[in-house]
Amino acid sequence: MENLLVDKKSGSNICVKVGNISIGGDSKVLISGPCSVESYENMHAIASELKNIGIHIIRGGAFKPRTSPYDFQGLQYEGLEILKAVGKEVQLPVVTEVMDVRDIDITLQYADMLQIGSRNMYNYSLLKELGKLKTTPILLKRGISATLSEWLYAAEYIMSHGNTNVVLCERGIRTFENYTRNTLDLNSVAAVKQKYRLPVIVDPSHGTGLRELVPSMSIAALCAGADGLMIESHINPDNAVSDSRQTVSMDCMRGIVQKMERLKNI
Amino acid sequence: MENLLVDKKSGSNICVKVGNISIGGDSKVLISGPCSVESYENMHAIASELKNIGIHIIRGGAFKPRTSPYDFQGLQYEGLEILKAVGKEVQLPVVTEVMDVRDIDITLQYADMLQIGSRNMYNYSLLKELGKLKTTPILLKRGISATLSEWLYAAEYIMSHGNTNVVLCERGIRTFENYTRNTLDLNSVAAVKQKYRLPVIVDPSHGTGLRELVPSMSIAALCAGADGLMIESHINPDNAVSDSRQTVSMDCMRGIVQKMERLKNI
Amino acid sequence: MENLLVDKKSGSNICVKVGNISIGGDSKVLISGPCSVESYENMHAIASELKNIGIHIIRGGAFKPRTSPYDFQGLQYEGLEILKAVGKEVQLPVVTEVMDVRDIDITLQYADMLQIGSRNMYNYSLLKELGKLKTTPILLKRGISATLSEWLYAAEYIMSHGNTNVVLCERGIRTFENYTRNTLDLNSVAAVKQKYRLPVIVDPSHGTGLRELVPSMSIAALCAGADGLMIESHINPDNAVSDSRQTVSMDCMRGIVQKMERLKNI
Amino acid sequence: MENLLVDKKSGSNICVKVGNISIGGDSKVLISGPCSVESYENMHAIASELKNIGIHIIRGGAFKPRTSPYDFQGLQYEGLEILKAVGKEVQLPVVTEVMDVRDIDITLQYADMLQIGSRNMYNYSLLKELGKLKTTPILLKRGISATLSEWLYAAEYIMSHGNTNVVLCERGIRTFENYTRNTLDLNSVAAVKQKYRLPVIVDPSHGTGLRELVPSMSIAALCAGADGLMIESHINPDNAVSDSRQTVSMDCMRGIVQKMERLKNI
Repeated sequence: MENLLVDKKSGSNICVKVGNISIGGDSKVLISGPCSVESYENMHAIASELKNIGIHIIRGGAFKPRTSPYDFQGLQYEGLEILKAVGKEVQLPVVTEVMDVRDIDITLQYADMLQIGSRNMYNYSLLKELGKLKTTPILLKRGISATLSEWLYAAEYIMSHGNTNVVLCERGIRTFENYTRNTLDLNSVAAVKQKYRLPVIVDPSHGTGLRELVPSMSIAALCAGADGLMIESHINPDNAVSDSRQTVSMDCMRGIVQKMERLKNI
Repeated sequence: MENLLVDKKSGSNICVKVGNISIGGDSKVLISGPCSVESYENMHAIASELKNIGIHIIRGGAFKPRTSPYDFQGLQYEGLEILKAVGKEVQLPVVTEVMDVRDIDITLQYADMLQIGSRNMYNYSLLKELGKLKTTPILLKRGISATLSEWLYAAEYIMSHGNTNVVLCERGIRTFENYTRNTLDLNSVAAVKQKYRLPVIVDPSHGTGLRELVPSMSIAALCAGADGLMIESHINPDNAVSDSRQTVSMDCMRGIVQKMERLKNI
Repeated sequence: MENLLVDKKSGSNICVKVGNISIGGDSKVLISGPCSVESYENMHAIASELKNIGIHIIRGGAFKPRTSPYDFQGLQYEGLEILKAVGKEVQLPVVTEVMDVRDIDITLQYADMLQIGSRNMYNYSLLKELGKLKTTPILLKRGISATLSEWLYAAEYIMSHGNTNVVLCERGIRTFENYTRNTLDLNSVAAVKQKYRLPVIVDPSHGTGLRELVPSMSIAALCAGADGLMIESHINPDNAVSDSRQTVSMDCMRGIVQKMERLKNI
Repeated sequence: MENLLVDKKSGSNICVKVGNISIGGDSKVLISGPCSVESYENMHAIASELKNIGIHIIRGGAFKPRTSPYDFQGLQYEGLEILKAVGKEVQLPVVTEVMDVRDIDITLQYADMLQIGSRNMYNYSLLKELGKLKTTPILLKRGISATLSEWLYAAEYIMSHGNTNVVLCERGIRTFENYTRNTLDLNSVAAVKQKYRLPVIVDPSHGTGLRELVPSMSIAALCAGADGLMIESHINPDNAVSDSRQTVSMDCMRGIVQKMERLKNI
């Protein structure tokens, strides 16, 4: 894996701009929002609160990859409309997942950053197309059981096709442990920061699957070297239409932000 | 997972026709060929031998999902042309992988069966499109670390969109063991045969990663209940452009066929 | 791992004698019995049936390693007495697990073969002591998540201390899959037969955790090259005091023996 | 798992005293030293430095569980003598591993705390004997692929036999990832702190296998809630007789202590 674009030997560390937010610079970045965009009212209420709390980028799923074809698949194009409108109102950039090469163009009209979900990390057709976008920031989640090497090669697919604006996102790996939904692999974060050029953030929501573990693991992730966090939050977590069990409240988000502030001093 | 189309309670067992070959019926089916289509001459030589040996369906990769963007990505459309021409000459149906929704239409003109590779098992956009094809047989490989349940739900994505011609393919799962490339999970084959309606075949090439283990594991797979096998073979395995270490020779294929014949008596 | 005693290069294949039964020779060997020795009457009824069916060695747990300290820990010394008495009556050798170096001497007075359970595969103190026994046959189960290499090194601990009468037992490994209790790794069986000198048997009871999968996986294991099987059975499986879900009936055992007979012809 | 002694519902949080050091109280505890005790001079040099740096407890392996029987098995009784002498000189308590029930009594004469290594977490005979000691502090490492539940039940074995002085130690679990030696599971630390009564410390040396990742993961572990750390260190890490690749220098230890100091302010 020498001579790869992701390698520190190939150039300086990459800092990715999303709107006026820099990921991979001196400040830690917070991305938050609901698992799925549910409605305009709901999304607006969540985003307004998050703005007040100090979150930097809003997330919300419009196209939802679900294990069962009978589960809610997201509001899709309507979800994109809502996300964009809300982002504009609260004046924050938005990130959302794209699952299909045919949806890239339209999604670009609505989102400031495109997310590749864990299930599509090996979808090389999709990665190549995102590479051709050159300037659009990409959030590349680690595959459910991707090795560190495979994950970096997935980034290399995007970079070698022309787009170096890639942010890695560790979101837990699949192991035998079933107390938690996944096993958050902070080792990989420390390793990325040491040897590779790309920013890396952590998603403790999927990484634990349990909202009560999210605050501790958020701080742990930042101490392991993460450049930021992506956390699923909701004004009413128990009623979230998807991933409720791992979604935190606005109060919880506020607590995380406060603890992050104190971390700056060390 | 009750009430699913894949469940035996939803209807009779499904038998999938590929050309004049039935998968899931009384006879075990053999699919073989090189990992990648390399050239017309090479593909023709392999297919002719395989026809003589008694193989039922020819495989060959035209679009190759590779971990590194710098590795050989397949002959692509040229590969499809070769595969179709050779299939016609030896009068055997052909199966090849499709990785991108935009390639489905063209691939349909060349192949008798479409394969979803392990890396795309969670690519729900692709699965939905294959569902809409209604009559095209689909070979659905298990994801690298998909649970049995997720794999069946992937089949359900295809079936619920209108296409019940799905053949499952167990190809080994990712575990801590590194002596073999993957851990062939024959438990899953026995479980599928017991509770689900779809035919299931086994790929001992990826399932072991070691050509010397392929003959034993082929027979073991059939005894676990598999409806057939998909084996990577080559007239000159050491020179195969991809997956050489797990590719067997024509002599080895002949031995497997002979042993399969004797299995019929038990 | 060259120059190891387990390696085929170090000598001829090892055939282990247990009473008048040879493991690793031309014939496949069947070991069966309940998970736990429950009572004299129960053990006698089971062993008598198994003798009629054609089983070669009787198993029964006296000391039971249980995840919870509050679960039944086995009849212990009373269990050993029952096992020996029953073995004598039905004229079959018996195998039982030893968990503690301090129990080796007494267990030797009751059992023809000593089993190291999966949880104690890394218990090197115990392995060394069993090595010093020189002639006692040892059944070495693979650790719950031991690599093939670690398992062979565990055998090497016994062999290098003087006892080459070691039979390996594959019993499933721990993976992310949770449909089955463990993932039976038949790849490892094929690998052992190819490169190592020791006999290897398979335990499809723990390897699947589901009694309905035991018959298929038994035959699959033999086809992968296993020298025998160890299967948990009971005259009344639903009432077995431990491992009921994976314990088969006497009728099921009879069916497996019949299918094994037919396998001889291939 | 309700009604277990490990459960917070069964009583107040447990604080374990080792000499005059409390684990599980307000202060974070640092345990450090070489993987193996190598010689008196070496051990004395390391311990003296560690004392200056501010480490609280000295570790050193006398009995070493090694995968291969041909690898260095530790200085054994001589190692215990050295460890005790050095501990006395630097006036710090010492912890060392015990692998065999027959070594407990003698080890008690030399060590202030007994460690159960990862390979012996399921060695229930050993756990029961340690339970009978009542007052000796026990450091219980998590098994290589033990679930959180199995690990807690292992603690329950000790506690239910009378000894509640148990400190858990997360040391990484076995997964498919091979960039690092193990995958450090900090989720489990956060979970233990939330629901269970026992102190839990983290071993980032085994948890990563790479010395350059130890500082980041040490701080991450403390932020996840760990009550302390156990780190392999050496005055000359490259020459350590075992685990050299994951052993840090004295300078590195000093840096970790300084960062820990600053953490107190958040």
